[in-house]
Amino acid sequence: MKPDTSTPEVVETTFYVRFAETDAMGVVHHAAYIVWMEEGRSVWGRAQGTPYNDFIATGFYLALVEVKARYTVPARYGQRVTVRTWLEKFGSRGMTFAYEIINPDDGAVHLTGTTRHICVTREGRPARFPEAWLARLEAAK
Amino acid sequence: MKPDTSTPEVVETTFYVRFAETDAMGVVHHAAYIVWMEEGRSVWGRAQGTPYNDFIATGFYLALVEVKARYTVPARYGQRVTVRTWLEKFGSRGMTFAYEIINPDDGAVHLTGTTRHICVTREGRPARFPEAWLARLEAAK
Amino acid sequence: MKPDTSTPEVVETTFYVRFAETDAMGVVHHAAYIVWMEEGRSVWGRAQGTPYNDFIATGFYLALVEVKARYTVPARYGQRVTVRTWLEKFGSRGMTFAYEIINPDDGAVHLTGTTRHICVTREGRPARFPEAWLARLEAAK
Amino acid sequence: MKPDTSTPEVVETTFYVRFAETDAMGVVHHAAYIVWMEEGRSVWGRAQGTPYNDFIATGFYLALVEVKARYTVPARYGQRVTVRTWLEKFGSRGMTFAYEIINPDDGAVHLTGTTRHICVTREGRPARFPEAWLARLEAAK
Repeated sequence: MKPDTSTPEVVETTFYVRFAETDAMGVVHHAAYIVWMEEGRSVWGRAQGTPYNDFIATGFYLALVEVKARYTVPARYGQRVTVRTWLEKFGSRGMTFAYEIINPDDGAVHLTGTTRHICVTREGRPARFPEAWLARLEAAK
Repeated sequence: MKPDTSTPEVVETTFYVRFAETDAMGVVHHAAYIVWMEEGRSVWGRAQGTPYNDFIATGFYLALVEVKARYTVPARYGQRVTVRTWLEKFGSRGMTFAYEIINPDDGAVHLTGTTRHICVTREGRPARFPEAWLARLEAAK
Repeated sequence: MKPDTSTPEVVETTFYVRFAETDAMGVVHHAAYIVWMEEGRSVWGRAQGTPYNDFIATGFYLALVEVKARYTVPARYGQRVTVRTWLEKFGSRGMTFAYEIINPDDGAVHLTGTTRHICVTREGRPARFPEAWLARLEAAK
Repeated sequence: MKPDTSTPEVVETTFYVRFAETDAMGVVHHAAYIVWMEEGRSVWGRAQGTPYNDFIATGFYLALVEVKARYTVPARYGQRVTVRTWLEKFGSRGMTFAYEIINPDDGAVHLTGTTRHICVTREGRPARFPEAWLARLEAAK
């Protein structure tokens, strides 16, 4: 499941579970991991020199069109999680990110997943990535 | 705490607690009630003929500048809650809403609170309500 | 995509988008739909006479193990959404729900998705559904 | 507003705004700050040697009974925020935390607030803090 850690580049971010992210089953609610994957993408963008805010400044957005997530060991309040994010596929009109969310202290895997995104105009119409951005993403890959 | 139910007009909305709104203490997380108060304002706006989307269309936003909330009996998954919302104060540049969140089935009071809002431009600068809107709010009060 | 509306039974719930569910792209954030699917399951359970709280009372939980979601037209604040939920598959140790989230006013499809769940003990170990519950789910299907 | 930074001890935590925390006004939604204050308390507890999980292990919870928050400059996606948390008041049955949320890069103050908490049993009845814990909190103050 884990890619070779250098190609494509895996970007990691580690933080504590927030209490608000738990639910009445005593573990982290499944929607919280969806937000963590998004945060993984944000960190990936900043690490690659392609922060999402810079992308928005070009007049485009990345619209999420698909989420696939498999949940294994539940994460709990009090622990840290590490989100590992990498660019799995990338084309002129969209991209797919892959994720692994683990417990950095015992190595347990909480989730593996992917999200698919397309480039859209501010009005939400599918579009081709701006050329300059394509080059930056090509370099980041 | 409860105002006379006709003056100002109290608008109610009732819905089930969502499982995602609970936390590991087994009850509704305190941030969920903040969202419910906002939903109370939305319902109030629609009931008064002043939906928030229409307000945004005038080129202004309502910025929330203060929240005060007192939590009493915790709400739980499986129950319904009723949010009672009314306009407590209203001026040319802002307004204060008051709320009571209860269990409609047993009358338990979950929360009482207020939120204060000011009219701002799209750039976030404080502004006077547009005249037409002042008149509508005056009528709604 | 839509099943025959009677077999299996599709349960619908309709509500307004909450402002808190939007993001800075001006549309509903993708994690909010995950919560809506869960709310669809809650409504399904209540409609079938198998509310989730009753299930928890048996000493078991339903652990979500997979989410798949495809996002099409974005939903927006000010509109209503209808979550259509049905039981797609069901076995002695788990079940799969399918969803369609639409705009009830213009028929636009916002999301189609599935979630897979397994029966677990309070300690999180996979288990077989209690017999009485298997019978209720069989009837509900 | 800012206390002398040593007495009581102010504990800081800094993180990036998550995209999911924004709303359609383009800024951070007001409920997200409520979660950040809670995260401030978590970090405070870990810094003081009194993590919340250890407290729960004693058989008690801290129930939040009041939130007061004043919102000033809105925070935005792409920036970092620093949550400064300190224990404002403390008694045998409850405590009050105070917070300041700022932009660590330009010093802008996003929010000042307080939360009040009481010690409750697992069943939710108000209780006195366990003696050992009182001593630890006394030391932490």
